[in-house]
Amino acid sequence: MKQTIRLDPSDNVVTATRPLEAGAQVETVTTTGLIPSGHKIATAAIAEGAPIRKYAQLIGYAAQPIAAGDHVHTHNVAFRNTDEEYAYSTDLRPAAPAAQSDSFMGYRRANGTVGTRNYIAIVTSVNCSATAARQIAAHFTPDRLAAYPNVDGVCAFVHGTGCGMAGDGEGFEALQRVMWGYARHPNHAGVLMVGLGCEMNQIDWLLEAYGLEQGPLFQTMNIQNVAGLRRTVEAGIAKIEAMLPLANAQTRTPCPASDLKVALQCGGSDAWSGITANPALGHACDLLVAQGGTGVLAETPEIYGAEHLLTRRAIDRATGDKLIGLIRWWEDYTARNRGSMDNNPSPGNKKGGLTTILEKSLGAAAKGGTTPLTGVYKYAEPVTARGFTFMDSPGYDPASVTGQIAGGCNLVCFTTGRGSAFGSKPAPTIKVATNSEMYGRMIDDMDVNAGTILTDGISVEEKGREIYELFLRIASGTASKSEAQGLGDYEFVPWQIGAVM
Amino acid sequence: MKQTIRLDPSDNVVTATRPLEAGAQVETVTTTGLIPSGHKIATAAIAEGAPIRKYAQLIGYAAQPIAAGDHVHTHNVAFRNTDEEYAYSTDLRPAAPAAQSDSFMGYRRANGTVGTRNYIAIVTSVNCSATAARQIAAHFTPDRLAAYPNVDGVCAFVHGTGCGMAGDGEGFEALQRVMWGYARHPNHAGVLMVGLGCEMNQIDWLLEAYGLEQGPLFQTMNIQNVAGLRRTVEAGIAKIEAMLPLANAQTRTPCPASDLKVALQCGGSDAWSGITANPALGHACDLLVAQGGTGVLAETPEIYGAEHLLTRRAIDRATGDKLIGLIRWWEDYTARNRGSMDNNPSPGNKKGGLTTILEKSLGAAAKGGTTPLTGVYKYAEPVTARGFTFMDSPGYDPASVTGQIAGGCNLVCFTTGRGSAFGSKPAPTIKVATNSEMYGRMIDDMDVNAGTILTDGISVEEKGREIYELFLRIASGTASKSEAQGLGDYEFVPWQIGAVM
Ligand SMILES: [Ca+2]
Ligand SMILES: [Ca+2]
Ligand SMILES: [Ca+2]
Ligand SMILES: [Ca+2]
Ligand SMILES: [Ca+2]
Repeated sequence: MKQTIRLDPSDNVVTATRPLEAGAQVETVTTTGLIPSGHKIATAAIAEGAPIRKYAQLIGYAAQPIAAGDHVHTHNVAFRNTDEEYAYSTDLRPAAPAAQSDSFMGYRRANGTVGTRNYIAIVTSVNCSATAARQIAAHFTPDRLAAYPNVDGVCAFVHGTGCGMAGDGEGFEALQRVMWGYARHPNHAGVLMVGLGCEMNQIDWLLEAYGLEQGPLFQTMNIQNVAGLRRTVEAGIAKIEAMLPLANAQTRTPCPASDLKVALQCGGSDAWSGITANPALGHACDLLVAQGGTGVLAETPEIYGAEHLLTRRAIDRATGDKLIGLIRWWEDYTARNRGSMDNNPSPGNKKGGLTTILEKSLGAAAKGGTTPLTGVYKYAEPVTARGFTFMDSPGYDPASVTGQIAGGCNLVCFTTGRGSAFGSKPAPTIKVATNSEMYGRMIDDMDVNAGTILTDGISVEEKGREIYELFLRIASGTASKSEAQGLGDYEFVPWQIGAVM
Repeated sequence: MKQTIRLDPSDNVVTATRPLEAGAQVETVTTTGLIPSGHKIATAAIAEGAPIRKYAQLIGYAAQPIAAGDHVHTHNVAFRNTDEEYAYSTDLRPAAPAAQSDSFMGYRRANGTVGTRNYIAIVTSVNCSATAARQIAAHFTPDRLAAYPNVDGVCAFVHGTGCGMAGDGEGFEALQRVMWGYARHPNHAGVLMVGLGCEMNQIDWLLEAYGLEQGPLFQTMNIQNVAGLRRTVEAGIAKIEAMLPLANAQTRTPCPASDLKVALQCGGSDAWSGITANPALGHACDLLVAQGGTGVLAETPEIYGAEHLLTRRAIDRATGDKLIGLIRWWEDYTARNRGSMDNNPSPGNKKGGLTTILEKSLGAAAKGGTTPLTGVYKYAEPVTARGFTFMDSPGYDPASVTGQIAGGCNLVCFTTGRGSAFGSKPAPTIKVATNSEMYGRMIDDMDVNAGTILTDGISVEEKGREIYELFLRIASGTASKSEAQGLGDYEFVPWQIGAVM
């Protein structure tokens, strides 16, 4: 095991992977005292007031002169609140152009988007049509789909909301964006929308708002019009049977890596998330961006406190200001729901070596790599920019990923330290373990072990390339671990914003 | 078709079931002008300032002298806001004791409660264990359960919340009450709780808060401890296999009707809901209360504006004040979520004949009959009082019924005008149509046609007795229409109160 991890060549601290005694040789310096596991060591002298850099980013300032080899933590680091002093586009580090153009085998759709899977979706407007949708989907067993080898399955997207809510405003609009996002997703060859009829979240309003017309591969129906559950299920089965030959005619063709849009996600994080799996995923994102592809970071509460570092990476002022607008919205949202946006390191975080809110938030944001922030989106809004982008969402995994998929992500990459059994449809989830112990214990669920950065001296860059190459294989049709286990049918959770009435 | 409906002998108005010309004979009076369908006719002279009574309740005051036979509507009715002028226990009309004691065949549990079904439940703490729970339940096919004829099935209760939420406060407490309510439900012979491990809604906190201990029929497990999805599913199947012989040893025995606790619910209401199905269900509730049984009204936003009529029915001041406390909480909840508690008749309601907020709210409250209000409960709180009770909940059907079932309801009775395909587990749902047209159209979903009150001259009392007798049959094991169609596996929706973070 390497005894320290360097996250960027420009950093003036490295992180100990195990407890180090005073006098340990660390890169070119010698430790001046005991360094606990997960804590930082100065690799150069840092003058009082000078920046401490980790992830190539500012995480605080030296509160006193720091010698090379010193333990760097709360006792000698100051964090100045930089609220309202945003800088824009001052830290733009575009990805170096890729030496070669990579490709994967995808489903190119008529509108130019590319699917990594080929499903037929049943999208519900309200919980009142949940059983109808499940019963329609359940009809399409592997036996009944055997004649359609290019169809990956019939999925029901069922949820707990859609009525007992305001018929306008942010909650309503977010739900309609999710529905439309799943309806238009490139991993769906065909879509059937099923509602009840009297719900607040009217399918007809959606069709009108987005100018949608029914056709052979897009159909809608309401239980109250079709006259009951049984007839709805029968009619739904017939509609999907008619779609199957058309969906089966779709085939994989070579597509450039630039057609990949990857949801960057973490859940069940641990002290190593910000050191191993998140930076490795960030490097994979950089490699993808170098190809012209797209990474979508989310989980606004988890980047709280580091937003002014992201504005410096914003390609322009408008993009940076959109991000700040999200932060202000969250402060209000949590306040009026009697919560708070406290993302400061907890006592446990500090014991693990996290010194400031910047460092903690950067550990989460590390999933997004180092390239410029090219776009900021509302929850479930279509992501149209290429490059590294941000989407507003809660940190809660299923709600966040639902928004990312609605935005058009055709792959999900999910880092976890405690261990998660998450999976998603229609975009498959790749899971990356932050530590080798959990990877070994949950090997049926984990696709990648980023713990080898600690245990086997693998570099963040090597691990990032491994993840990036897995993107291409999974996108081409290889099943991820969660996919092989049949996950993804019960993790569709539209973010519910307003009051339930 | 009868041309008018009288809802109580003491009412001074009746409702027209079709348009009536001037000069029509209505009971002992003659109409003085045109009466639209659904509108009210005075059956006696009403002096200026005197109360208008429908449902044996005040719905407004005469704004001018009203003659017998006059159309009674917004032009001659005044509604005085009686805010803050609550009267308590001034309108107590206890049920007349029943002439005979009725019974049904139920499962009497060790703690004295009685089940109407005999399921094994898989209760989840968080969405992250949803697929695990579904895969465990899916193992128990009819073939595999054939050796256990007294077991109605293995149900997974899966939802979209449980993390990304505050770890205390009303939203958290409501979710823990729902979990504990389903775990303890008398329709469950055995319970397996499945979590992830790192979620906010910790199973261990629940066990500690409620002093629960694991045993042969109550088991818990977390995916992170069991080490992954596959092993969790295998372990869960083994735990339930061990419960099956014990659950199958339970048998039905005669139980008094007083052991029934019926959730009173409406959804997809129409102009006839308050005239046919709701009053008929109210009479069924009165018959049940006369036996010593319990009815649980809910849907706080829908009784808004009539709360001071319910305080008059409250058995004591504390019970009435609890109800007022809920109303105040809702005013705050909707305001801070940028909504409002407007339950006034809409233009469409007025066109249909609803004159005041009192009349509208009484139409919803009519499901609760006429007997004293014996208890008021928080969402998902155990209902311990006998008689007519009230539970706080949204109007949204799946969220409201989830609270009622968590409170111990072993039957659900659901009135609908537009038509609903709702169903529930572990307590079965009986559906009552408000009109004959929809009943005929959705006959596979509707158990009772209360539209015959309009079309066939059946009295509210007769229809109420039909519903009450159906309670006893369904409670004894006859499948309701929704149950026969396999509904109830996807309608478990805990009310999500706070911010999703
Ligand atoms: Ca996270
Ligand atoms: Ca997350
Ligand atoms: Ca059976
Ligand atoms: Ca209702
Ligand atoms: Ca309802």
